[in-house]
Amino acid sequence: MIYFDSDYMVGAHPEVLERLVETNGLHTVGYGFDEFTAEAKRKVLEACGIENGDVFFLVGGTQTNAVVIDRLLDHNDGVVAADTAHINVHEAGAIEANGHKVITLPNHDGKLRGEDIEKYINDFYRDETNHYMVRPAMVYISYPTELGTVYSREELQGVSDVCRKWNIPLYLDGARLAYGLAAEGGELGLKDIAAMCDVFYIGGTKCGALFGEAVVTRRPELLPRFVSLMKLRGATLAKGRLLGVQFATLFSNGLYERIGAHAVKLAMRMKEGFVEKGYKLFIDSPTNQQFYVMPNEKIDMLKMVASFEQWGPRGEKETPVRFVTDWATTEEDVTALIAALGD
Amino acid sequence: MIYFDSDYMVGAHPEVLERLVETNGLHTVGYGFDEFTAEAKRKVLEACGIENGDVFFLVGGTQTNAVVIDRLLDHNDGVVAADTAHINVHEAGAIEANGHKVITLPNHDGKLRGEDIEKYINDFYRDETNHYMVRPAMVYISYPTELGTVYSREELQGVSDVCRKWNIPLYLDGARLAYGLAAEGGELGLKDIAAMCDVFYIGGTKCGALFGEAVVTRRPELLPRFVSLMKLRGATLAKGRLLGVQFATLFSNGLYERIGAHAVKLAMRMKEGFVEKGYKLFIDSPTNQQFYVMPNEKIDMLKMVASFEQWGPRGEKETPVRFVTDWATTEEDVTALIAALGD
Amino acid sequence: MIYFDSDYMVGAHPEVLERLVETNGLHTVGYGFDEFTAEAKRKVLEACGIENGDVFFLVGGTQTNAVVIDRLLDHNDGVVAADTAHINVHEAGAIEANGHKVITLPNHDGKLRGEDIEKYINDFYRDETNHYMVRPAMVYISYPTELGTVYSREELQGVSDVCRKWNIPLYLDGARLAYGLAAEGGELGLKDIAAMCDVFYIGGTKCGALFGEAVVTRRPELLPRFVSLMKLRGATLAKGRLLGVQFATLFSNGLYERIGAHAVKLAMRMKEGFVEKGYKLFIDSPTNQQFYVMPNEKIDMLKMVASFEQWGPRGEKETPVRFVTDWATTEEDVTALIAALGD
Amino acid sequence: MIYFDSDYMVGAHPEVLERLVETNGLHTVGYGFDEFTAEAKRKVLEACGIENGDVFFLVGGTQTNAVVIDRLLDHNDGVVAADTAHINVHEAGAIEANGHKVITLPNHDGKLRGEDIEKYINDFYRDETNHYMVRPAMVYISYPTELGTVYSREELQGVSDVCRKWNIPLYLDGARLAYGLAAEGGELGLKDIAAMCDVFYIGGTKCGALFGEAVVTRRPELLPRFVSLMKLRGATLAKGRLLGVQFATLFSNGLYERIGAHAVKLAMRMKEGFVEKGYKLFIDSPTNQQFYVMPNEKIDMLKMVASFEQWGPRGEKETPVRFVTDWATTEEDVTALIAALGD
Repeated sequence: MIYFDSDYMVGAHPEVLERLVETNGLHTVGYGFDEFTAEAKRKVLEACGIENGDVFFLVGGTQTNAVVIDRLLDHNDGVVAADTAHINVHEAGAIEANGHKVITLPNHDGKLRGEDIEKYINDFYRDETNHYMVRPAMVYISYPTELGTVYSREELQGVSDVCRKWNIPLYLDGARLAYGLAAEGGELGLKDIAAMCDVFYIGGTKCGALFGEAVVTRRPELLPRFVSLMKLRGATLAKGRLLGVQFATLFSNGLYERIGAHAVKLAMRMKEGFVEKGYKLFIDSPTNQQFYVMPNEKIDMLKMVASFEQWGPRGEKETPVRFVTDWATTEEDVTALIAALGD
Repeated sequence: MIYFDSDYMVGAHPEVLERLVETNGLHTVGYGFDEFTAEAKRKVLEACGIENGDVFFLVGGTQTNAVVIDRLLDHNDGVVAADTAHINVHEAGAIEANGHKVITLPNHDGKLRGEDIEKYINDFYRDETNHYMVRPAMVYISYPTELGTVYSREELQGVSDVCRKWNIPLYLDGARLAYGLAAEGGELGLKDIAAMCDVFYIGGTKCGALFGEAVVTRRPELLPRFVSLMKLRGATLAKGRLLGVQFATLFSNGLYERIGAHAVKLAMRMKEGFVEKGYKLFIDSPTNQQFYVMPNEKIDMLKMVASFEQWGPRGEKETPVRFVTDWATTEEDVTALIAALGD
Repeated sequence: MIYFDSDYMVGAHPEVLERLVETNGLHTVGYGFDEFTAEAKRKVLEACGIENGDVFFLVGGTQTNAVVIDRLLDHNDGVVAADTAHINVHEAGAIEANGHKVITLPNHDGKLRGEDIEKYINDFYRDETNHYMVRPAMVYISYPTELGTVYSREELQGVSDVCRKWNIPLYLDGARLAYGLAAEGGELGLKDIAAMCDVFYIGGTKCGALFGEAVVTRRPELLPRFVSLMKLRGATLAKGRLLGVQFATLFSNGLYERIGAHAVKLAMRMKEGFVEKGYKLFIDSPTNQQFYVMPNEKIDMLKMVASFEQWGPRGEKETPVRFVTDWATTEEDVTALIAALGD
Repeated sequence: MIYFDSDYMVGAHPEVLERLVETNGLHTVGYGFDEFTAEAKRKVLEACGIENGDVFFLVGGTQTNAVVIDRLLDHNDGVVAADTAHINVHEAGAIEANGHKVITLPNHDGKLRGEDIEKYINDFYRDETNHYMVRPAMVYISYPTELGTVYSREELQGVSDVCRKWNIPLYLDGARLAYGLAAEGGELGLKDIAAMCDVFYIGGTKCGALFGEAVVTRRPELLPRFVSLMKLRGATLAKGRLLGVQFATLFSNGLYERIGAHAVKLAMRMKEGFVEKGYKLFIDSPTNQQFYVMPNEKIDMLKMVASFEQWGPRGEKETPVRFVTDWATTEEDVTALIAALGD
């Protein structure tokens, strides 16, 4: 069996694992007040080009989104997101569970458009009865999006500009950020993202770590008493240094970039193979998630040698499917997959 | 000035007020355990044709929706509603504040369609990853809707059938129920609604009371420990008999029907007048809310003699507006309004 | 039957009711943006000696406590209260339902002591692990307390001083404030309370209104976007002017003072009668709630002619009981009660 | 420096780490639906002597307590706990953040007594006004307690009996369960605990794992849709097999027992040393947490060679302190600590 279900199917990248083993026996204080965590913070901030910012390490993505959004919003505030956003679809209502509405706008290939946000907020403030409506008080985007797409520089700047105009934070979910940074034709680096967003997180779980997400901000005043809130939401890790060790390693020797580049290279090769064999793209993704529309009988046949996900409920004759690469995917895996497609 | 802003601009219907005055000096126990409340429950259940049901009296509509929905849903459950639904737009996020997602479907003249609900739920259960998606676990509709429209018998039956098929409660918001029951061409009586819905509320605030909403169910097992939950949410009234007295009066001598019929009759007269003068209907409403599209300069002129609401942000040249009648509206008010439109 | 169960057993004081009747037919805008409400705000602020403050009118006490406390606290903040406090015992967990811990300190005749609060907060900040403990971030007291007692000037000043030292708000629950202001030997007026507390509410429900509580603050910056939060928590009233009309009346012609004075005078007469007949005071209350310890058989006998509450579970031989007077209690009621005690 | 601050200061026990390394490269499905997790469930249930139960793996203790308690309680329900309980003191209000009151009873050396619980619940149900009081609907205890003490068989049976009498679940927090099972003079094994409690968790984080807690129940009907709730609360781990691998290892070859026995043996040796040198026990703990009362200057001196925690705010002359052993503590560490005490 070859595996393309997701990017969290194996353990940690060997360099990360090695470092965890090396440091396993050391004593440190708990909850992220240790030196490994401090080192990781420095490295992350440096990679982001941030001088006076802050970094917090959490365990998983849904947890991270829930805690950050809960911190950024006041009562009666909502978060603007694409209708396809992870927080709107696949987080079991975690945002609402903390009391906040997800205000959805139509997605464009998984992305929000600055002009749509502008129109929504502008209309909101022009509505005389808005004090009983949920205030659009922050914007959530992801990079890459749920559909594997990435924002161009102009697109992200457009979203960022609207947020600054209305003085609301822009938060970027980077669960798969490594693959976004390595996107085919991608225009944005980590420093661009750090400059255009107010808060974002750098995904570890799907990008080479056992687990872990690094919340980064160049505006620490936006996240007051964040450590207490993390505890309140069950989002702290007693052996916090595990997060520090992993992120310090991911941000040493270009590992995070290497992981992204490897997976995207193989994803592009896969795309080429599918297209050559005449398969329709469900969407043209430049990152490690690839989406095709396949006949149902082909899906059933392929499932016998490869594992991957249907994207939504099964259609009558054909269904969108998703194949995901990561740091552990090999050239042989991709070659075998393409071969398994037959002719 | 003549008033058409809403149906909560005057106090109580004289018969209700009179009864409040008569009973003012009596001593009763608090929190709705009094005889007036018991009487009101009996009368409401009888009007609904329910033998073994229960009734709870709350103060206001947003409060009622929030508490009922909180009671009907488990963790990770959402309520399906039209995108135009009051709970989705004008309740300040009260449903989400209690931890629940509002799952929206496109409205059809303010209404949900059974087939849309069926498709949504069916797709949900066919999606293999649905355990991390919010479960559609109840349906919210209103009668009349935000746009003043009403469900036909077939339409409501369609929604009701889907809910029963999937074994989820159907909840109807009757903030303006009196006007829905009196709708021009309306096909549904109180007993029909009671039979097709699992829980619903009969609006008092907008239908002749000072305040108050009566939550009715023929399935009391759906609302366990409801009085405690009301207290927890700040939705109890110490002098609970005020609610009992008002609803006992509304459901005596056909008052609730008379209130609805009066307001709808005048609304229909108003519609006739607008149409005769060539105004476009924003939507064709058979109840006490009337919506027209008016040129902005006409709106500004009319605002000098009549008060009414713009429906959403002002358009460039014309804007939808809403005029509402209630038990206190007089024929003279309507005549004056039509006259004020000019030629 | 003569009634001493509570102070919410009859409707409104005749002067309040009369004004409601007079204004019933007038049209006003909803949700407290009307002129009656504006008038009530002015009168309340004037009575409190506050120049630049704000007033918000809510429907009931639990609701008021829940919304105010929710507004004053951040995540991971708790409210310090006496173990006997209404919010800790009789509000069904409404404070916790909004996510906040009630941090209890031992009561002294129902009251908190400044020195106890000081010690608790001081210890908290001296504890090195306090970032995972709930921060004591405001203080809740009531006046009179659950046991009918009142703070002396020195006692309230002591609590107020601690709050200012630590820069946390002091909130006073005045559900029965009229009776506290009229307390036998009471040292504090409305202006004193307004000056020593940051936020407090003036009870209407138990002090002559049909319902309603007035939240007052001389520091409006403590309650930002409060109207939206009220809506979010279901605490707004569509016909908001009902609250304005009632409070404008209560604060005209000394009505609020008259109500308090009347009830306290009768309560003192009642106390005299019980003491003369040899009954033990459960606590010596100078306000409208009176507590005695009575033999169980006496309680059972008395229940046949008077209604009143046992205070907690029944004891083996004797049980504390509570008798409450209000504006509607008559001299005859008290005389009859004392007579019914027998010899 | 020798370390006694807590039992989460090093990584994983070598046997656990080795297994994580061995399995690192394998592909599995995510979120705990893998074979390692299934294996761990089987082993845990077997060790607990449970045939038809269920096991869920979460990441940390506060998270586990918050999610389990949220699942076990309805609206307006509270959890009964000792005033010293972790959930009442050191979890940042996580229980309240999910809407539930922690109802505290006085602790007896960190423990609850069945008779105290019985009295509380009995009084509650005898109070006529209890529908507006928070219902005591489950009991939380920990084993060992915050003070390192353990329940005798009779004590735990007493608590368990009360819970069964009132039909409310008994939940046991086993963050340090390995050390409780190995307690000097302890009377209870894992199967006893599994039989007497309805739900409990076996701590991994503090007992040899990198992280992880195993929630166990012999009554799966108490935890419906628990996986969804975990997601909602951000308590799932994408690479769920990491938890499975660790617990499968902890419950192989008697590792969990060995870890507990090792730490307790050294803790007893430590106690002996302190007592011999004349130090007062703050409490006599039979497990891996040891508490002494030490003169402040002695504390300051000792801090130069050993790290450990003050237990609460510093006293004037002396202060309670805590020393914790775990699987990584060596005999040399303890010998060095005792030597450092001087004479």
